[in-house]
Amino acid sequence: MNKFTFQNSTKIIFGEGQIAEISSNIPKDARILVTYGGGSIKSNGVYDQVCEALSDHTWDEFGGIEPNPQFATLMEAVKLVQTEGFDYLLAVGGGSVVDGTKFIAAAAEYKGSDPWDILAADAKVESAVPMGCVLTLPATGSESNMGAVVSKGSEKLSFGSPLVRPQFAVLDPAVTLTLPARQVANGVVDAFVHTMEQYLTYPVNAKVQDRFSEGLLQTLIEEGPKAMIEPEDLEVRANIMWAATMALNGLIGAGVPQDWTTHMIGHELTALHKIDHARTLSIVLPAVMRHQREAKKDKLLQYGVRVFGVECGTEEECLDIIIGRTVAFFRAMGVPTSLSEAGLSRDDIEPIVEQLRTHGMLKLGEHGAIGPDEAREILELAL
Amino acid sequence: MNKFTFQNSTKIIFGEGQIAEISSNIPKDARILVTYGGGSIKSNGVYDQVCEALSDHTWDEFGGIEPNPQFATLMEAVKLVQTEGFDYLLAVGGGSVVDGTKFIAAAAEYKGSDPWDILAADAKVESAVPMGCVLTLPATGSESNMGAVVSKGSEKLSFGSPLVRPQFAVLDPAVTLTLPARQVANGVVDAFVHTMEQYLTYPVNAKVQDRFSEGLLQTLIEEGPKAMIEPEDLEVRANIMWAATMALNGLIGAGVPQDWTTHMIGHELTALHKIDHARTLSIVLPAVMRHQREAKKDKLLQYGVRVFGVECGTEEECLDIIIGRTVAFFRAMGVPTSLSEAGLSRDDIEPIVEQLRTHGMLKLGEHGAIGPDEAREILELAL
Repeated sequence: MNKFTFQNSTKIIFGEGQIAEISSNIPKDARILVTYGGGSIKSNGVYDQVCEALSDHTWDEFGGIEPNPQFATLMEAVKLVQTEGFDYLLAVGGGSVVDGTKFIAAAAEYKGSDPWDILAADAKVESAVPMGCVLTLPATGSESNMGAVVSKGSEKLSFGSPLVRPQFAVLDPAVTLTLPARQVANGVVDAFVHTMEQYLTYPVNAKVQDRFSEGLLQTLIEEGPKAMIEPEDLEVRANIMWAATMALNGLIGAGVPQDWTTHMIGHELTALHKIDHARTLSIVLPAVMRHQREAKKDKLLQYGVRVFGVECGTEEECLDIIIGRTVAFFRAMGVPTSLSEAGLSRDDIEPIVEQLRTHGMLKLGEHGAIGPDEAREILELAL
Repeated sequence: MNKFTFQNSTKIIFGEGQIAEISSNIPKDARILVTYGGGSIKSNGVYDQVCEALSDHTWDEFGGIEPNPQFATLMEAVKLVQTEGFDYLLAVGGGSVVDGTKFIAAAAEYKGSDPWDILAADAKVESAVPMGCVLTLPATGSESNMGAVVSKGSEKLSFGSPLVRPQFAVLDPAVTLTLPARQVANGVVDAFVHTMEQYLTYPVNAKVQDRFSEGLLQTLIEEGPKAMIEPEDLEVRANIMWAATMALNGLIGAGVPQDWTTHMIGHELTALHKIDHARTLSIVLPAVMRHQREAKKDKLLQYGVRVFGVECGTEEECLDIIIGRTVAFFRAMGVPTSLSEAGLSRDDIEPIVEQLRTHGMLKLGEHGAIGPDEAREILELAL
């Protein structure tokens, strides 16, 4: 196991009916800006629950944060925070709303000339407006971590700071029951791939981290397809919601190597072709497994035995089966597993590689060995 | 899964050489009281590392905190904190030192007439001196939780408050290499039983919590005996140390029923007969499993299949094997699994039952169904 520092201070408030608890978790004298997305919270009852919970607070709202939240939209909210003096942000939505609100929190107190530098020039976040969140879509883990991804046109960039970690996160699985099947599937796949990116590298004898990751993978494999078939099952949604939070709250990645190749290539696919984030991951991960089959052999075999119970003859047969089982899981979730299923062809590969180069993604993978040429090979294996 | 609130703000600083990090984790203007136990830290190099790390800080020390820390000893430190104006506590030791220091932290700022009321009368902790810790013995999980156990004569009582949760915990597995084998074994067994007490109840379909608990149990079963046979293996110690912290930091117990029967009966065994804490647990847990064999059947079978890979004929055969495998693990750790191995007989049972009654332990177990009569039956099954 490698050295590590781990701290996650977010208070998790989990369970049906817990939105009411936001009242006691935000200072009574706070001026709150409630942020949200396309407005589904107004039809599914979440907005009403938030209004009820905030009846003794002073607050206003800012809607319209997009999936892949756009810099320009977020900057409107930043102006609002600055001019109206809001001193607490409450994000109500999925990962995009939480990510976008993290950026609003940091940009509103940014002293430099252009807040875009937080994303594009690694400008340090020195302070941020405190925030909490009510999660409506389990997927990204953003509700209790310190990272965020923001887009500007075809740029999709990330930043991280402990100052934007939500102080609390309400996780009520009941609010996820009305989600469209596509969003549920995307969330499960996103959480699954997050886990894999902190797990599928090389062994460092980190037994707890490995077992926890395997437990999350098993849970998502068991519960994900159930959520598709039995969309009204609240217990299934609860298990998915808790698994997705644990998949990217820093715990399973502490003290182990990580490989975010799939996410980085996926980001370019979303930026260039507007493919849902999770669907880029289900396209790229199997190709990364094929490309890194030898380098990641030890962990691939461990994953196969412990997560799928794979028993087979030769290692090569095993590896075929293990990659096949992963693809089969994605198919059960109804997501694409190749570029062609997303309508892309060989001609689309070079522009993606070029974008990776532009964004400085020259040394991806746990050994920094995946440069643009290797990314091209991966994309060819994803055709 | 049940509703829950989970927050654990302790910063974990894990790995060889990390004691140096305490320097940057305690305010430079703090007046620190370093607390420790019998002085082993002075012979194993830990004290020197702490001195080095605190060379720019103002500090003094208080040694002599016992295993099962005594109220009278801790009150001496409380007086020192109050008269000398220490405003930060650094516990350097195992669970007893950390627990004792938590009590010092709370008692030093207690406004009532007798700090014993914090333990005996559930007096509320309104404030506490901030504290951090350097853990030298993985076992109790105290380094990142809010609980503590303190003794006065034959009384062994507990309290808990988020105000006494350590702000940081340095976990350097290298400092555990010089521990006596008996203490290593005790630590592994303590962590194992903590996990079982949050796991071995009845199913509530909490898949992540179950998988995490099983992962910790597997890790302790794999690594514990190795630490006995290969005491110089640092990776084994690292896995044990991280597993022990995760076993009682609140995570695996969030949203699930718990059954602390084994600990509560065990505390009386320690108070009356001075048996090491962990050794009371290895005596009591198998008897609890036998007594609750029917009530806990579902989780016992799940534990057997997932942790030990038990495959067998009838459920009854399985249960025999599963309890037997648990006893065998304890034997591999060199700890007793019956009262007679600890030199106790049937005559010793009634006074233990009487103590449980005195301490109000009338409704133990996840259903509150274990009263004094059931505790007597359990102790008879432990003979």
